Amino acid sequence: MHVNLADKRVLITGGAGLIGSAIAMRLVGMKADVTVVDALLPQHGGNRRNLQDVADHIKMIVADLRDPAGVDGLVDGVDVVFNLAGQSSHLDSMTDPLADLDINSRAQVGILEALRRASPLAKVIFASTRQVYGRPRYLPVDEAHPVHPVDVNGINKLSGEWFHRLYHEVYGLQTSVLRLTNTYGPGMRIVDARQTFLGVWILHLLRGEPFEIWGGAQLRDFNYVEDVADAFLAAAVSDKADGRVFNLGSREVVSLRQVGEMLVDLNGGGRFEIRDFPEERRRIDIGDCHCDFAAIETTLGWQPRMSLRNGLQRTLEYYRHNMGHYA
Amino acid sequence: MHVNLADKRVLITGGAGLIGSAIAMRLVGMKADVTVVDALLPQHGGNRRNLQDVADHIKMIVADLRDPAGVDGLVDGVDVVFNLAGQSSHLDSMTDPLADLDINSRAQVGILEALRRASPLAKVIFASTRQVYGRPRYLPVDEAHPVHPVDVNGINKLSGEWFHRLYHEVYGLQTSVLRLTNTYGPGMRIVDARQTFLGVWILHLLRGEPFEIWGGAQLRDFNYVEDVADAFLAAAVSDKADGRVFNLGSREVVSLRQVGEMLVDLNGGGRFEIRDFPEERRRIDIGDCHCDFAAIETTLGWQPRMSLRNGLQRTLEYYRHNMGHYA
Repeated sequence: MHVNLADKRVLITGGAGLIGSAIAMRLVGMKADVTVVDALLPQHGGNRRNLQDVADHIKMIVADLRDPAGVDGLVDGVDVVFNLAGQSSHLDSMTDPLADLDINSRAQVGILEALRRASPLAKVIFASTRQVYGRPRYLPVDEAHPVHPVDVNGINKLSGEWFHRLYHEVYGLQTSVLRLTNTYGPGMRIVDARQTFLGVWILHLLRGEPFEIWGGAQLRDFNYVEDVADAFLAAAVSDKADGRVFNLGSREVVSLRQVGEMLVDLNGGGRFEIRDFPEERRRIDIGDCHCDFAAIETTLGWQPRMSLRNGLQRTLEYYRHNMGHYA
Repeated sequence: MHVNLADKRVLITGGAGLIGSAIAMRLVGMKADVTVVDALLPQHGGNRRNLQDVADHIKMIVADLRDPAGVDGLVDGVDVVFNLAGQSSHLDSMTDPLADLDINSRAQVGILEALRRASPLAKVIFASTRQVYGRPRYLPVDEAHPVHPVDVNGINKLSGEWFHRLYHEVYGLQTSVLRLTNTYGPGMRIVDARQTFLGVWILHLLRGEPFEIWGGAQLRDFNYVEDVADAFLAAAVSDKADGRVFNLGSREVVSLRQVGEMLVDLNGGGRFEIRDFPEERRRIDIGDCHCDFAAIETTLGWQPRMSLRNGLQRTLEYYRHNMGHYA
């Protein structure tokens, strides 16, 4: 799909994060008018380094969208919002459920209320998660699969989804929801597993330390960040996306152990240890999970292009040269 | 089902409201140790008059559960929580979505967090709503019907449900959820339609003024408050309720016009006017709705006992003599 957002006013919430920054770079390439807002919270995915190549071509606002003052004026006259600001750690959502709620649910109401008043024709693409499905009843998980969140994060992301859908149905905002699976690539948080376990695996691997795999037999699918950016851009330019919820996903389904082995192989060395789940993680683990993306493929023509092996190779290469900015 | 909660420490949130006060009176009758907490917010259903007969036998706390200080210490050592505090106006949830979220979703996390720390064995019965289903795809609506909230209230009540279910699944709290249909009876708010349209109909009828019915052909089911109190008590004493979600409902399905006619007949006079939906209500109207309660009937032995005609008669009678305390 050819995407052209030249001269469009685009806001990216969470725009210094893994996906937001990838979208920002693509938008700058097509000469869109880009504003990034990011709270740059130390536990989250935002990192100024992710935007260094486009820093002179975007407007960067450091603000927390939980604060109404952070939202005020932000969305006036905006054409497109890539709404990625969120708390993504499942474990943190259990230890601080109110913080997760305030970011993933409450702040979304603030953004949508501001949009319906100031920019009621805006396209809004909301980053949700396949975590809303909980433990899959069948695989691959499609959008008709019942939702059953197994952690606070899943509940609040589900609320965030519903608010976006409601503001489409009641007020006509052109919202759509993408349920992301494991997204990885250059720009992800690696200092811990708060954003993705792949990050901390790569950190340890590049430091020559063993990394831990909990379980190991679980099946997962992965999307490279550029593929995910493609999906957001495709949703932003299609009327067919409005009011819809789409899974992302991949047909390349692998066990965590296989991913570990692939990383060690690509790195030309290293090792991992298979561990039992810690108790607090076991309770919110979802077992095998991979997602059916036929709906977005049929509707928007999206499919992932990057193989896991090539994507991991690029990611390793990036962190070999940029480690100091992330850990 | 025989319910005995003698000497049990019971907390009723929203306990000055229609259902909470009915439960309180039943509990006092069985010599339970009852604490009622209610914010007595002017737009909500709480009314001290509802508790006048048991005021000397309960502990009454006026506190807003949105305030963490309101929750502090409240649940320590409690055996049962009837968790009814909520914002029930669909229209208000659209004009002040954050207030609805803070009460129906955010405050629930505060209550559940306090419970899992202080009283992890407590039974907790959460009052939800059939509003989470949205516009029914089939009738009667059973618990397997997909949820699709059509207003902010439905989204936040759904979150409140999920939090209760999660705290059962992860922490073992003995929670259950009742999805209420239209509940009415002595003690309901009548000054406006924020709690139930029946209230304001009865207000106008008893004042000799015409009341307005919007639409009129919509089918609905109704539960008398004592029947609903029965359901809460049944859930509180059965292990089979833990982790479950149950509809309430009635097999007596009537159109709003029929309810209006029944009220006029019972009152021995009066009239109503059929009106088109105001625009802001039309957007969040759900059309016909009535609920299948086979699950709770089979599992807990609950069924509604009061006919609509008898229930409305008692309700009219109550407000004839107590109008001054409610309007």
